[in-house]
Amino acid sequence: MIRKTRLFTPGPTPLLPAAQFAMAAADIHHRTPEFRALYLRVLDQLKTFVGTKNDVLLLASSGTGAMEASVSNLTSPGDRVLVLSAGKFGERWEALAKAFGCSVDVVKVPYGQTFSLDEVRKALKTETRAVFMQATESSTGVRHDVQGVAALLKTANSNSLLVVDAITGLGTTHFDVDTWGVDIMIGGSQKAVMIPPGLSYLSVSDRAWQAMESSRNPRYYFDLRKERKNAKNGESAYTPAVALIAALGAALDYIAAQGGGDLAVGRKALVDNAETCAAMTRAAVEALGLKLFAPDAPAAAATAVLPPDGVDSGVVVKELKSRFAAVITNGQGEMKGQIFRIAHIGFFDYMDTIAIVGALEQVAASSLKLPGFEFGKALAVAQKAYVERTAKPASEKLEAVGAR
Amino acid sequence: MIRKTRLFTPGPTPLLPAAQFAMAAADIHHRTPEFRALYLRVLDQLKTFVGTKNDVLLLASSGTGAMEASVSNLTSPGDRVLVLSAGKFGERWEALAKAFGCSVDVVKVPYGQTFSLDEVRKALKTETRAVFMQATESSTGVRHDVQGVAALLKTANSNSLLVVDAITGLGTTHFDVDTWGVDIMIGGSQKAVMIPPGLSYLSVSDRAWQAMESSRNPRYYFDLRKERKNAKNGESAYTPAVALIAALGAALDYIAAQGGGDLAVGRKALVDNAETCAAMTRAAVEALGLKLFAPDAPAAAATAVLPPDGVDSGVVVKELKSRFAAVITNGQGEMKGQIFRIAHIGFFDYMDTIAIVGALEQVAASSLKLPGFEFGKALAVAQKAYVERTAKPASEKLEAVGAR
Repeated sequence: MIRKTRLFTPGPTPLLPAAQFAMAAADIHHRTPEFRALYLRVLDQLKTFVGTKNDVLLLASSGTGAMEASVSNLTSPGDRVLVLSAGKFGERWEALAKAFGCSVDVVKVPYGQTFSLDEVRKALKTETRAVFMQATESSTGVRHDVQGVAALLKTANSNSLLVVDAITGLGTTHFDVDTWGVDIMIGGSQKAVMIPPGLSYLSVSDRAWQAMESSRNPRYYFDLRKERKNAKNGESAYTPAVALIAALGAALDYIAAQGGGDLAVGRKALVDNAETCAAMTRAAVEALGLKLFAPDAPAAAATAVLPPDGVDSGVVVKELKSRFAAVITNGQGEMKGQIFRIAHIGFFDYMDTIAIVGALEQVAASSLKLPGFEFGKALAVAQKAYVERTAKPASEKLEAVGAR
Repeated sequence: MIRKTRLFTPGPTPLLPAAQFAMAAADIHHRTPEFRALYLRVLDQLKTFVGTKNDVLLLASSGTGAMEASVSNLTSPGDRVLVLSAGKFGERWEALAKAFGCSVDVVKVPYGQTFSLDEVRKALKTETRAVFMQATESSTGVRHDVQGVAALLKTANSNSLLVVDAITGLGTTHFDVDTWGVDIMIGGSQKAVMIPPGLSYLSVSDRAWQAMESSRNPRYYFDLRKERKNAKNGESAYTPAVALIAALGAALDYIAAQGGGDLAVGRKALVDNAETCAAMTRAAVEALGLKLFAPDAPAAAATAVLPPDGVDSGVVVKELKSRFAAVITNGQGEMKGQIFRIAHIGFFDYMDTIAIVGALEQVAASSLKLPGFEFGKALAVAQKAYVERTAKPASEKLEAVGAR
């Protein structure tokens, strides 16, 4: 049978056709008025998308590049920093901070869990220069309490900067960067903005700019001050990834169109969309008799699921691929074989979600011996979850999600 | 919520990405060796796709152009011809034959039905020069008995030519053009070959070429003899639709790949694919408590469904579009408001089919008061139909379908 390749992965995510067309048409030189106009427009749109009045910069790098830029621009060798770690990407903060000579404290909780604010409070030192965390830990499908950590820092240690890897959090979670006080907020192109990998972006607060003046770690390609200076004139410090920037502009236009022309409204609708796909998927998975890996703090970016006892999660990943060309992800690092993950971040809709649940039932029927399995049961639960979420007025829904 | 536009229409059908890329890259002039190589390759592949040793020609026109070419090249004013009509496209044959001055006999059966061979036998005259029919009537989702009509002509009137509009039949039904004796078999680009509208193609038998020598109807753009002469050198008589031809080449390569590199096997797999999507959809629709419009001779190209009594089928069409961006078709002509049609022809897979059934259930839940409706019931039935069809060895399935 025909099998169309479909990504259900938390990055890269499915590509937006309008962005693909813009990317294919991006035959412009980067030191021209045409590019400068595009660049200034995209940087301005990104501020709205991140939801901040802070500068937002674009880098020709993966998200890890922006993570490195945060460390190298904000810290000096010997600085004490705190990493909140609950998975593979938390561990990356730790490795990065160590690579740049920081003295790293870590709040570490098991994969699948999030940390309590109490644990964070205890680990904070007077001299903690910065706290590094994820908004959502993509490797486990867990959402962390950025708002809570930000509030805690304000009262407990107002000198410490807060750096948030929101690579899978932006576009799947509601943030208020400026009110909460997030100093650096990081995003990536292959996530909720529905374009291929190759770009990262980050918002930088006034406090962070000031901190950079005294930071003594080496940086050149990721020198944010140089990037900011050039950005004011619509230029990048080094050769920009032109086609991806054109694609990003088209994607932000699409997100704005989802909000009736208002990008801030469109951003909320995008979060709401991921929440609906996630709610449908979580309900379906539980109806199958499978367990969520992160039932208490599930991220809307992706749903992580435990296979039945004694079954390697790779079986589900492989069968969805070989039988339906649907690409989901296995666990990463130590979680490999332990969980599988279905993404909702970015360009997914009702029909995608029904389709992946249908295919998952098909795999369950043939390969997971689930007691009481019946075709259509998980699908029906997903459909009802959709009805429940879409029945509420949009304003009520947005508030409810934002309040979490 | 995000709604991705998806066509479930029996032409245009969803586009194959590889064909889209080939189309976008088709920056070649048509009087060059590059184009000639492409054209000869595509014409050769089309012979395999149609399944014939006859010449196959391409026209820069919609399918109706190839229908007109059949009439204008084979008939003379005053010729007696027989049209087998069971819907909008049967009526088109009648109108075309009249436009070219033929004396037209018609076997006409109600929309949703097919004709018996007995009715055809009775309508055949000794002087009937040609019989015009559809392989499947797209407007009603009915499959006609091409093999039966062809066999009947061989015994009852071996002088009569058989012209088959297989525009939605090719790639959804098994044919044996040469053994059965189909003189002209017509296809269109926006159908099973998964590319946009703008091309038609037709196979022409030796008998048909001979008949053209004595035909006195006027033709210029659609002069098939001129087209054949040019085609032997890899050229078209008039400017060809280069980008669509490049797309067609890519699509035929894809279909061949579905058959492990063998286009004849890929063509069978494509028919089997449409049959599976159709079987899933028919089972689902009946599980909802809706009635098929053509239960006795359903085409695999599309499934036509009767809405509940008192409900305009446009309600289903509109709601699927507005709520899920899924485009299905209403009835055409006198059937408008009476049926809706979900297509399976071309680039559809399991996940598409599950998704449209899921969305249809959602519309049923909110707008069709169906007794005993339950979420997931139609989906489960579709899933089981999939299991049943895919459980059999492929060879067995193909024979079973071919034998009908």
